[in-house]
Amino acid sequence: MQTGTQTTLRAQLQQLIDNKTKPIGALGRLEEVAVQIGMIQGTTHPQLGRPYIVVFAGDHGIAATGLVNPYPQAVTAQMVLNFITGGAAINVFCRQHHLGLTVVDAGVKFDFEPGLFPGKLIAHKIGYGTRNYLESEAMTAEEVEKAMDAGKQVVTDLYAGGTNCVGFGEMGIGNTSSAALIMSFITGIPVEDCVGRGTGVNDEQLRVKKETLRKVYDLHLPAITAAGDKTIGRDAAGGVATAGRDTAGPGGDAKTILQCVGGFEIAMMTGAYLRAAELKMIILADGFITTSALLLAKQLNPAVQDNCFFAHTSGETGHAAMLDYLGAKPLLQLGMRLGEGTGAAMAYPLLQSAVYFLRDMASFQSAGVSKASDNE
Amino acid sequence: MQTGTQTTLRAQLQQLIDNKTKPIGALGRLEEVAVQIGMIQGTTHPQLGRPYIVVFAGDHGIAATGLVNPYPQAVTAQMVLNFITGGAAINVFCRQHHLGLTVVDAGVKFDFEPGLFPGKLIAHKIGYGTRNYLESEAMTAEEVEKAMDAGKQVVTDLYAGGTNCVGFGEMGIGNTSSAALIMSFITGIPVEDCVGRGTGVNDEQLRVKKETLRKVYDLHLPAITAAGDKTIGRDAAGGVATAGRDTAGPGGDAKTILQCVGGFEIAMMTGAYLRAAELKMIILADGFITTSALLLAKQLNPAVQDNCFFAHTSGETGHAAMLDYLGAKPLLQLGMRLGEGTGAAMAYPLLQSAVYFLRDMASFQSAGVSKASDNE
Repeated sequence: MQTGTQTTLRAQLQQLIDNKTKPIGALGRLEEVAVQIGMIQGTTHPQLGRPYIVVFAGDHGIAATGLVNPYPQAVTAQMVLNFITGGAAINVFCRQHHLGLTVVDAGVKFDFEPGLFPGKLIAHKIGYGTRNYLESEAMTAEEVEKAMDAGKQVVTDLYAGGTNCVGFGEMGIGNTSSAALIMSFITGIPVEDCVGRGTGVNDEQLRVKKETLRKVYDLHLPAITAAGDKTIGRDAAGGVATAGRDTAGPGGDAKTILQCVGGFEIAMMTGAYLRAAELKMIILADGFITTSALLLAKQLNPAVQDNCFFAHTSGETGHAAMLDYLGAKPLLQLGMRLGEGTGAAMAYPLLQSAVYFLRDMASFQSAGVSKASDNE
Repeated sequence: MQTGTQTTLRAQLQQLIDNKTKPIGALGRLEEVAVQIGMIQGTTHPQLGRPYIVVFAGDHGIAATGLVNPYPQAVTAQMVLNFITGGAAINVFCRQHHLGLTVVDAGVKFDFEPGLFPGKLIAHKIGYGTRNYLESEAMTAEEVEKAMDAGKQVVTDLYAGGTNCVGFGEMGIGNTSSAALIMSFITGIPVEDCVGRGTGVNDEQLRVKKETLRKVYDLHLPAITAAGDKTIGRDAAGGVATAGRDTAGPGGDAKTILQCVGGFEIAMMTGAYLRAAELKMIILADGFITTSALLLAKQLNPAVQDNCFFAHTSGETGHAAMLDYLGAKPLLQLGMRLGEGTGAAMAYPLLQSAVYFLRDMASFQSAGVSKASDNE
């Protein structure tokens, strides 16, 4: 619901845009982006300050089984080192767009030498990977809280340094599985339809991945259901609940879902989204895994989405349905499915374009350009 | 058809991309862009040098009638001055992405003070707007040649200055009408289906615009048909020709179409596309009007399209069908319909990302990252 002040601000932003030297609406989605950024910052003169990409990395117990992932678990740590030394895709795109980049060790199964990478790696290790959720809960309730708090702290620190725009990314071998499970529990879409090829499983591996995640789903359904049916997409019998479902209301389920089938990096991102929205920051949501964290954050605070821009539709199966569920319109459709926040980094210049045209374009009056009505 | 060397280069580019620290294919369209840029430049180490947007501006005789355009004709010159003083959308986006910008007076109905804007406005005025094609041909055959030559000269000069990547834009009140007519003559799609709202005609104005352009189409059909049926989308009886139509072959029709219903800025862009492709430049095609010039250029040299990237799908009706006709996959879908080369400028960073990831990302070997097969 909008207050009177918000309605006035929206109208002011629209008027400013409509007076720019261009036909009404001719900048399409960019105009919507400009309005949303203005609304988030509560001003007709929004600015983007020290934009950052934060990559949360964590390992997943399930990955050690090899049932869901073609790449070995060790790749999580190897890629973190690749981020630190600047050789990954996200490094390239952050350098291109002058975005800050920081990596958070949320729970990688590797000991990074402390203090070796100041400003590049933040140590918030909750554990050496989650437990295998095919056998038990992925983490404890305390670990969920600790991870979420760490995510909040990361964002608080960035904000203190002048950052008002943040994109989240992730790295974690096996984490598309966690994201698919979260998606299924939140949206009620059968888990098989949420599962995709991740980093590239073949047909047989995909079959095994689906079969495995169905078992995981069934194992944890009772606990998640017991934690409250208010925000759960499936009823106790496992059927899809639709009528009367309150997906927007706050509830404890997000945390139970995280505990049962989450990942440390996903829990941390959930906290990060929540704090970023509290601080009125602009948030760039990236792909399948980062959006699964948003599904959880939105359960805890429905207003979070007001601060989000959706960078792209990932090539990972399920992301498009996730975006549909959120009613989100992504900015890019490039078939990317790399994670790391790469979609967010690629979409950043579009936010920048929106802010710049609002700030720098001449008005019909200032440029002495005739309007359409002058033809009559 | 590809030569053996081209096949080898394509394989080398693909191998380079597949060895980058990311799952196979995970950068989606960006990977295709990287391959295409490498193929255009004939190297596995492509570079973008001094990228430029060139805005061709010209007036249209039809615009003085007010039958097709809500904005008065004077806006063409007013917007050229806005480009020169830096207040238009294209200025904002060029500054953002460090793109050079130059405006070409192809035939604006206004005398710009000579020498007042060195480096910002290139004088190639063919005339004070085209003639009204509702009554006669828009221009003479000599004017077509002169305009195409001028477009080639602009590109030759940019190339000499180190530019290897160019995006074309346009400004000309009434030029969506010219583009719709060109589209209809080339593709065989009925002119009514090619006509859109341009800068924003209302329903009644749209009806009049369609009615007017049908008359123009019928008036010029005999001359265009007589000039050769090889590349024309409609047969002499006005029916849509399909079987046996050779749209890819060279022919004189593009020039006849330009003469009958073109614009000075469109003719100039046609020449510019041809020369840019000859010089192995990377070309960013923008929206409805710039793509209509590409339809013409492609009639004259089918290979031109190999050098083109399609920046976006314009919100202008007809552009999507134009892209379909070309089998082109646009990079952005933001509902923009402003012209000026704004789509090209917004898409430029995607080309840059493709070149940078190819150049700067670590390989699995260099970063010490395990490949998927290491899991087996």
